[in-house]
Amino acid sequence: MRKVVYGVGISLDGYIARRDGSVDFLFMPTDYSMAAFFKRIDLAVMGRKTYEMGVKMGGGSFDGQGMKCYVFSRTIEAGEHGGAIFTAESPAEFVKELRNKKGKDVWLMGGGELAREFLREDLVDELYLGVVPVLIGEGIAAFPSGFPQREFTLIDNKTYSKGLIALRYEQTGTKKRAQK
Amino acid sequence: MRKVVYGVGISLDGYIARRDGSVDFLFMPTDYSMAAFFKRIDLAVMGRKTYEMGVKMGGGSFDGQGMKCYVFSRTIEAGEHGGAIFTAESPAEFVKELRNKKGKDVWLMGGGELAREFLREDLVDELYLGVVPVLIGEGIAAFPSGFPQREFTLIDNKTYSKGLIALRYEQTGTKKRAQK
Repeated sequence: MRKVVYGVGISLDGYIARRDGSVDFLFMPTDYSMAAFFKRIDLAVMGRKTYEMGVKMGGGSFDGQGMKCYVFSRTIEAGEHGGAIFTAESPAEFVKELRNKKGKDVWLMGGGELAREFLREDLVDELYLGVVPVLIGEGIAAFPSGFPQREFTLIDNKTYSKGLIALRYEQTGTKKRAQK
Repeated sequence: MRKVVYGVGISLDGYIARRDGSVDFLFMPTDYSMAAFFKRIDLAVMGRKTYEMGVKMGGGSFDGQGMKCYVFSRTIEAGEHGGAIFTAESPAEFVKELRNKKGKDVWLMGGGELAREFLREDLVDELYLGVVPVLIGEGIAAFPSGFPQREFTLIDNKTYSKGLIALRYEQTGTKKRAQK
């Protein structure tokens, strides 16, 4: 079964970005690589605000880096434009269709609001968190309030240089769901 | 120099307790021990709400487990009563006095509001976090918004059974301060 992996870099106090969307506090040490992660992914999904931050950071254009990128939006017209595929479907419908198709795993890139919707609908199979050693004090939460409790199993915990830790969790119910 | 260690168990989404103060989601696996931590501590500080939760969990009386326990409160009369020592001092005054006395390190037990005050005043030297593999969705945040950015250095990252991870961080400026 294709899995949905919520993969984000976060501050120690759980923010994926500052209030203004900037992520200057995140870093990727040289001994850390996302190559293994990218190998298992063929599709990225994100919220509209995260897409727009990507456009801003790309100097006006969006670079999906070879991945098929889907953007959830209630305001932007559905269809392929601006370097991504916009959808007005609900996360639940979208993921159901994806799971019925063959393919690699799906990267839920954020932001927090979309992650909350995915968690509310119980669509997140794995968490892949890079935690940097800084408390930023305020920002956009990786796990904003408003979803029921979700249990996970720790799969991997690795320490990298400069104090980055990379954590992988699998949702405790995921295997059961796959066997259904 | 005596250090102030903010030591708490947290959910993966950064809560030290549920909204009602309950901590049923926290656990301590058998291969994990706080003995080394308790050895370096001779004093605990907490906020009034955390104290009251302790009284409730103790069936009506507060058990400091042999530690001197200070409670910060603006409403309860200062002095020793109810199994703890109440203080109306500011965290900054309190910690300054402590640092001028010989003794072991100080355990900041929480809650979130007191932690925010300590972080705002830059009084936290270390973080000692036990992270359990569950997203509880809402609760009392370990690091509530409202303090400036604080940089840390990762000292230790260990995995225990049932997916508990224990993280130790030292505030990046702490050594400099001790040398002053």
